[in-house]
Amino acid sequence: MHYLRGEPQQLPGNRKPLAAYEAKNFLFEVKEGVATLTLNRPERKNPLTFESYAELRDLFRTLSHADDVHAVVMTGAGDNFCSGGDVHEIIGPLTKLDMPGLLAFTRMTGDVVKAMRACPQPVIAAVDGICAGAGAILAMASDIRFGTARSKTAFLFTRVGLAGCDMGACAILPRIIGHGRASELLYSGRSMGGEEAERWGFFNRLIAPETLLGEAQDFATELVRGPTFAHGMTKKMLHQEWNMGIDEAIDAEAQAQAVCMATNDFHRAYHAFVGKRKPGFEGD
Amino acid sequence: MHYLRGEPQQLPGNRKPLAAYEAKNFLFEVKEGVATLTLNRPERKNPLTFESYAELRDLFRTLSHADDVHAVVMTGAGDNFCSGGDVHEIIGPLTKLDMPGLLAFTRMTGDVVKAMRACPQPVIAAVDGICAGAGAILAMASDIRFGTARSKTAFLFTRVGLAGCDMGACAILPRIIGHGRASELLYSGRSMGGEEAERWGFFNRLIAPETLLGEAQDFATELVRGPTFAHGMTKKMLHQEWNMGIDEAIDAEAQAQAVCMATNDFHRAYHAFVGKRKPGFEGD
Amino acid sequence: MHYLRGEPQQLPGNRKPLAAYEAKNFLFEVKEGVATLTLNRPERKNPLTFESYAELRDLFRTLSHADDVHAVVMTGAGDNFCSGGDVHEIIGPLTKLDMPGLLAFTRMTGDVVKAMRACPQPVIAAVDGICAGAGAILAMASDIRFGTARSKTAFLFTRVGLAGCDMGACAILPRIIGHGRASELLYSGRSMGGEEAERWGFFNRLIAPETLLGEAQDFATELVRGPTFAHGMTKKMLHQEWNMGIDEAIDAEAQAQAVCMATNDFHRAYHAFVGKRKPGFEGD
Repeated sequence: MHYLRGEPQQLPGNRKPLAAYEAKNFLFEVKEGVATLTLNRPERKNPLTFESYAELRDLFRTLSHADDVHAVVMTGAGDNFCSGGDVHEIIGPLTKLDMPGLLAFTRMTGDVVKAMRACPQPVIAAVDGICAGAGAILAMASDIRFGTARSKTAFLFTRVGLAGCDMGACAILPRIIGHGRASELLYSGRSMGGEEAERWGFFNRLIAPETLLGEAQDFATELVRGPTFAHGMTKKMLHQEWNMGIDEAIDAEAQAQAVCMATNDFHRAYHAFVGKRKPGFEGD
Repeated sequence: MHYLRGEPQQLPGNRKPLAAYEAKNFLFEVKEGVATLTLNRPERKNPLTFESYAELRDLFRTLSHADDVHAVVMTGAGDNFCSGGDVHEIIGPLTKLDMPGLLAFTRMTGDVVKAMRACPQPVIAAVDGICAGAGAILAMASDIRFGTARSKTAFLFTRVGLAGCDMGACAILPRIIGHGRASELLYSGRSMGGEEAERWGFFNRLIAPETLLGEAQDFATELVRGPTFAHGMTKKMLHQEWNMGIDEAIDAEAQAQAVCMATNDFHRAYHAFVGKRKPGFEGD
Repeated sequence: MHYLRGEPQQLPGNRKPLAAYEAKNFLFEVKEGVATLTLNRPERKNPLTFESYAELRDLFRTLSHADDVHAVVMTGAGDNFCSGGDVHEIIGPLTKLDMPGLLAFTRMTGDVVKAMRACPQPVIAAVDGICAGAGAILAMASDIRFGTARSKTAFLFTRVGLAGCDMGACAILPRIIGHGRASELLYSGRSMGGEEAERWGFFNRLIAPETLLGEAQDFATELVRGPTFAHGMTKKMLHQEWNMGIDEAIDAEAQAQAVCMATNDFHRAYHAFVGKRKPGFEGD
């Protein structure tokens, strides 16, 4: 992606590459514009810690001005997605915090979701095995979810004495699977099975465990080959229009789409069509 | 639930028990923290009257400061849930009212739904047979719905010359079953069958008629054994976040969940986990 | 519909009939209060042009004060619904426009959806074959959708280098089929098959191609025989309440329904019920 043709060093907006980023609390690899983020403590089903929350928040914020990543695949190592906040490393310490300390924690975790929704890259979750607590939230906060039939997704906050309103779940989950189904999951904390999750629209598709990650990466690669500037606009507008009225949303989209019509990718698509070629998009 | 340990008489917030409440227009029974509210005019499929609307409104408002009810099961006697506003006792008199009188009525009925959404107790509707008009609204306004395959749920206002916008239906129903399906039901007034209702997410599950009420009560009892303060927070946030933006919702949840992390129930859960015990929640 | 009994010429609100309307860019026919609008360039799968967008906008605006049309069926000629904006007649010229010109176009197309949502008539889309781009939007912007198993609905803006945020899609589509499914369609541009569309709630029902239009017209005719003033109120409130809170929506509905209780149709329904007759509604 170029801001000024021929002058790639003069970029506004503080853009920088992320391919060389060395993650401390998970694996992070960039290939053909697709970043794969792998939660990687498989012996404990990939729990989150204070440090991994903070790094996820910072990384997704940095993605807003990365110029070499155009889609993110989030997954877990060893047949599980993520078991959520670790009991010993998170819940124990939380029981010792005062109110400012608790709020600092819940705001940090909420900021992870804010950052995931604010970055222009579509995030595709590849979910196998256990997907629980904050892990279920990470899947929910993704744009698209591929899962396996054997996966178990549980918004189990109620099981540790907490409310279902964690990191945006009471706002976002009802819009994905409907208000009644979300209510049951959030009050009861019960697991949603893979087939149920697909039937309810939580998973976009069910995939065999052995090809799950590959299919998620292939899907992401297809998006990266598409008009990535426009994809970022789609994500931005899905976010902006969340609680707009219909007329205001239509007005906002008129402006957003006019911006996209001024991109080179739109022209490339037209000329490719006229020339009976497949368009090659470049994200500008 | 205790506000001050050892001083249960010194409660703020005007809390009082409801177990001894004697309902005039329906049956009301409290057992192990679960209130079962049974519409009980089975010979006419449990229609509502001016008096039963008013009592429902007042009862659900009182539930906001009841300290011995932590979940509500709503059902109907004799194989039907509720046939809605009675033609002779409601519709006839309405045709004689002037505009202030009509508005007093529609505001009263709307207040029933407001009170159901404002009380901290999850409401579980157990729906068999006819569930029509205002009866369908009572089911819709519940948090969770269990139904039978033979049940028929009809938002049939249009059949009596009225609009589908009754007691919040145009806002709430689309969020439960999707905007297109809700539109069809509200314009046409047709019945939604039980299997269709489950497939669309209106019912959380289908149950045989003979075990319907028992399963709804068992589900409610499980919730009552959970962290009831946190459940009330879940319900509050599902309500508050209805038309918030995602970022604002995440901020609101950060504060709500920090409050829950300061409860004893959260600590109980942690210590039970460490001690490899099942946690015993007390709702404080 | 009459404003003053016996004085049909003295109507406020500038009402006028549309039966004699002669459409330039599509077919338009009114029968028993049902207008059938047929996109009619079957040799190219019924694409839209600058002129047809503008005429659709103007026609739906005029429908707001038509007194002889109470439901609209929208369909396409020759086994396809609509292929969207024509590549040669729309996309080519757009690549030559400056920003004010682009915005004039996107606002015009957005105004079509605004007008479809603002008119009081329920709009029923009858969708067979290709339903792509702006065609998919026209189906989405309808109140109710009947489709065929072989139909293919594609929000394919991304395929021409644009974003999914076109004419309100990022606001409306997630409310019909859920946020996760809508995200996949809007990012990928892939086709949604007919059975998938029904399963997800985009189509209200699947119908054989040969009876599709007839069933859509029959459904519309049933609505027209119902309380059409009340139907218009249902549509208005579905729109108004889109981003209201629950309590505000309930208050708004209390007023809207009280208005409907002051109509003659409500009285007709009551008297028909008492007289054990089927009510004859007249829309006043």
